[in-house]
Amino acid sequence: MPSRVTIADVAARAGVSKGAVSYALNGKPGLTDATRQRILSAADDLGWRPSSRARALSDGRALALGLVVARPPQLLGADPFFPAFIAGVETSLAEVGQSLVLQVVLDEEREEAGYRRLARDRTVDGVFLLDLRVHDARIPLLRELGMPAVTLNRPTSPSPFPAVCVSQTRGIEEVVDLLVGLGHRRIAHVSGPRDLAHAEARRGALSDALARHGLEPAAVLEGDFSAPSGAEQTRRLLAAGTRVTAVVYANDLMAVAGMATLSDAGLRVPEDVSVTGFDDTLLAAYARPGLTTVATDALTWGRQAALTLLQLVEHGHADDVVLEPTRLVRRTSVAPAP
Amino acid sequence: MPSRVTIADVAARAGVSKGAVSYALNGKPGLTDATRQRILSAADDLGWRPSSRARALSDGRALALGLVVARPPQLLGADPFFPAFIAGVETSLAEVGQSLVLQVVLDEEREEAGYRRLARDRTVDGVFLLDLRVHDARIPLLRELGMPAVTLNRPTSPSPFPAVCVSQTRGIEEVVDLLVGLGHRRIAHVSGPRDLAHAEARRGALSDALARHGLEPAAVLEGDFSAPSGAEQTRRLLAAGTRVTAVVYANDLMAVAGMATLSDAGLRVPEDVSVTGFDDTLLAAYARPGLTTVATDALTWGRQAALTLLQLVEHGHADDVVLEPTRLVRRTSVAPAP
Repeated sequence: MPSRVTIADVAARAGVSKGAVSYALNGKPGLTDATRQRILSAADDLGWRPSSRARALSDGRALALGLVVARPPQLLGADPFFPAFIAGVETSLAEVGQSLVLQVVLDEEREEAGYRRLARDRTVDGVFLLDLRVHDARIPLLRELGMPAVTLNRPTSPSPFPAVCVSQTRGIEEVVDLLVGLGHRRIAHVSGPRDLAHAEARRGALSDALARHGLEPAAVLEGDFSAPSGAEQTRRLLAAGTRVTAVVYANDLMAVAGMATLSDAGLRVPEDVSVTGFDDTLLAAYARPGLTTVATDALTWGRQAALTLLQLVEHGHADDVVLEPTRLVRRTSVAPAP
Repeated sequence: MPSRVTIADVAARAGVSKGAVSYALNGKPGLTDATRQRILSAADDLGWRPSSRARALSDGRALALGLVVARPPQLLGADPFFPAFIAGVETSLAEVGQSLVLQVVLDEEREEAGYRRLARDRTVDGVFLLDLRVHDARIPLLRELGMPAVTLNRPTSPSPFPAVCVSQTRGIEEVVDLLVGLGHRRIAHVSGPRDLAHAEARRGALSDALARHGLEPAAVLEGDFSAPSGAEQTRRLLAAGTRVTAVVYANDLMAVAGMATLSDAGLRVPEDVSVTGFDDTLLAAYARPGLTTVATDALTWGRQAALTLLQLVEHGHADDVVLEPTRLVRRTSVAPAP
């Protein structure tokens, strides 16, 4: 590699002090226009380029953002939300040449150690908080560590961090209005884990939307967002003999596995049972019947979360961002109640 | 945080020099057993724990491995191989408390800069080389940078780096034997990008396997491993009027999109056209008809690649690892030729 052009090199060529070069290159006042111009020309001749990277390194910045995930690594590979979110984050980071540090911890106990290590080693300049819990211990922890953070959605407990928000409610309401409009009255729900705030938000939104029609869920079964749990909870629902005409799954992965399970049990989707998912992943688009689902734009969510976190790191402040709410995407897995 | 117990603290408590403490703690010879024991007890009393992390940090190690990806971020989110591979890497890293640094670059030109930066800033101790190209410039680059690396499969050009290998051939041979055994003679292939070594390996394996039966592909269309390209190449195949009874897709994502496209065109899978994929992702298991495919265990591949790279970083040497070859997973998307 050619050695870097330093401020001393520029100073020598322009015949000024290093301080003057620094003033000129950083656009600070206090130099005559002619001097400033001479310095900038010298910098140009030598191929010196203003480098946010060099500035950041001298500030002790890591030029990387972090994501600590306390899910089994297998689920990271299976749940399409994660890679789409990460892809969105990378879209923003690629533009500024920064990296994402991804740390999977085996359980929540090791999560705290993971964050402490990232803070101590200055591995990252800030972190994303995903999978918010109902009372999330990470928020006071990160505040204590002085680690900038951005949360996906606003936590239920107080938080000093900016949030990038997508309303879960709207899309679920549209699903319920569609199903009820088609004559469905006995609607079951396969939820995500109850300790995850967004799983709870979806379950709550479903109950509220049904209540507005004078209904309640015919059954609520708790899955873990994985395909095998979607299949298992569907088998449990069938074994219990609960009569339902529609199942609202809390994500596409469980819904697609649920559709396969219903089909294997001799039930036709959508003629016998209507099915809906959540996320609008590729699974939904290419399943047959096509899966009616609720679109969250995970890529945009990731991109915007990264922009917000970069701004927070750079300026010490960033506002909440409210993205387009979730919305219904209708495909062929929903039909009039039998 | 409580301040760290230092070697000086242990030395003071045991009444010995810091050098003696270092000898005792690192298990080096040259101390009497009594002195060693006194030092270890002092260390114990103070809560000092042997820390590979501290040793590594004093060596200038990053305790992180890197992955530079020159694919559009969107594809990172869409192709299930990536997250499964990353999940496997994280399985190994989580056990040793290390991180993965993921850097997406927008094109191959910026890829070199990405690797140079990782090397210069010592952000990572080693890197994974995925998506090997037919003549891969990254191999001489990483050798020049002195950056430890592990390749997925052995490159076609000379490489000083250990490779973690999964034979693509076996599974494709089994697909061809199955199809030909069921009477298929006109078999098309939708490949991955021709400049990717593993896409070429699959295409080559298919041609070779067909040749052993005295056949050649009825058509070869080049996709890019994305679902939309699977749909598009299938439409092209149909529009060209090429008569085929089976389509072998180079990954599951293109195959599932292809099945939906065939179905939308009024063709029944498998009665009219048999379809196979590659990867054995969840898509394959939960598609209906279930997708016959070739299983690569991306999770194990990632886990083993990380173990090999950790060993290379630690010991300066690691052997090639040959994993179980790919194999046929038969589901309902394949039937006798019509």
